[in-house]
Amino acid sequence: MTNFANIRIVLVGTSHPGNIGAAARAMKTMCLDQLYLVNPQRYPCAEATARASSANDLLARARVCENLDLALADCALVIGASARLRTLAWPQLDPRQAADQIIGACGQGSVAVLFGRENSGLTNDELERCHYLMHIPGNPEYNSLNLAAAIQVVAYEIMMAALAHNSAVSTLVEESRDFAIAEETEGFYAQLEQVLIEIGFLDPAQPRLLMRRLRRLFMRARLDKNEVNILRGILTAVRQSQRSLHSS
Amino acid sequence: MTNFANIRIVLVGTSHPGNIGAAARAMKTMCLDQLYLVNPQRYPCAEATARASSANDLLARARVCENLDLALADCALVIGASARLRTLAWPQLDPRQAADQIIGACGQGSVAVLFGRENSGLTNDELERCHYLMHIPGNPEYNSLNLAAAIQVVAYEIMMAALAHNSAVSTLVEESRDFAIAEETEGFYAQLEQVLIEIGFLDPAQPRLLMRRLRRLFMRARLDKNEVNILRGILTAVRQSQRSLHSS
Repeated sequence: MTNFANIRIVLVGTSHPGNIGAAARAMKTMCLDQLYLVNPQRYPCAEATARASSANDLLARARVCENLDLALADCALVIGASARLRTLAWPQLDPRQAADQIIGACGQGSVAVLFGRENSGLTNDELERCHYLMHIPGNPEYNSLNLAAAIQVVAYEIMMAALAHNSAVSTLVEESRDFAIAEETEGFYAQLEQVLIEIGFLDPAQPRLLMRRLRRLFMRARLDKNEVNILRGILTAVRQSQRSLHSS
Repeated sequence: MTNFANIRIVLVGTSHPGNIGAAARAMKTMCLDQLYLVNPQRYPCAEATARASSANDLLARARVCENLDLALADCALVIGASARLRTLAWPQLDPRQAADQIIGACGQGSVAVLFGRENSGLTNDELERCHYLMHIPGNPEYNSLNLAAAIQVVAYEIMMAALAHNSAVSTLVEESRDFAIAEETEGFYAQLEQVLIEIGFLDPAQPRLLMRRLRRLFMRARLDKNEVNILRGILTAVRQSQRSLHSS
């Protein structure tokens, strides 16, 4: 059976409380009940409760987070909704492909689907925390799904994928990799950046797109815990070797 | 190309004008623009216009019909949304199957998708005008999609089916990455191994599986030429920083 409790919807910087309520309702119709709110502009709010209709229980349990890192800390797969194609290529999925990834991953750990602000979506910094971006195909001249409508589509696809997954005669060999969670990969990126500065490869005054490029590479690979440990071990060895040369 | 003009959404006896506006918006995001209103309780109405957002054009062209027969007269395929399984057995589809039928039929004639009243749905008499009933799978304990949310899901499925049908998947931006060739990645692995030995992270006498693990990680990411250059640049910087410390 699908572990729906491992699938969270993360709303970042939502402006209108009514949209939060409608999102809760859309989620509940498809068995999703983990709602995270990162810096909502107005919340709690009567308007959210009104629009949630009978999904008030879900709304009452929503977790409000001060920043995105707190909402993603224990997630092994992060997918970000993106209204437009980005100049910087990042692996991109439609909601059906995203749902397949989500259902494949939620048996082993937490999965997050991020939705950004009503007007401006997710920032590049937020998108870089995602393994995949997800784009809902539609009218190229009017691709402005309401926030709750977008969540409804994605939640529906997750339900469809769950039904297909559960009914499939599963001869499928589960990948047994123990994926790193966001807290671990972010720790690695921070250390990587620091070491690149120390060895003079990255100029903090002119960082350009270096870290973004490296993130993209490692996000694509979906690091497991063991790999994060190896990579951090290498970075530590780079530092130690400098220190020992320095002191010799 | 899909003849979207042959696909109409028919709302029967809608109570809340806000839902009519939201339905128009959901339709427009997916290139549907034929809206029929059978006996709406309050229409036209400012609330409908407000909720339609930039889909006002579509709303302005909506046709109001006195009865269902007028809305369906020229339709060759009629599909009715049904919240619950009926005692009367009727061919039943999920939205994906329904969308396939719709895309298959809309090249030859008009197709209608019927949505009933917010509280009571379609009457048996109305359902019997349908070739198929359509049920959106979901939470068995809370299967109460908002009217516009249900239309969003169905319109999305119609769009997905149209894209597949037109194999217009070519509208997706082709990934234009210039993948590294084996000669390049092998050069990187060799340099990586050498640097790992120099910094004391890899013991050539006891290499274990380290290089294999790192290869697996980078193979999975499918490196492009630019990324290989960045990674080799980092390795070179590690060496140079050691040398400069050494000579200082």
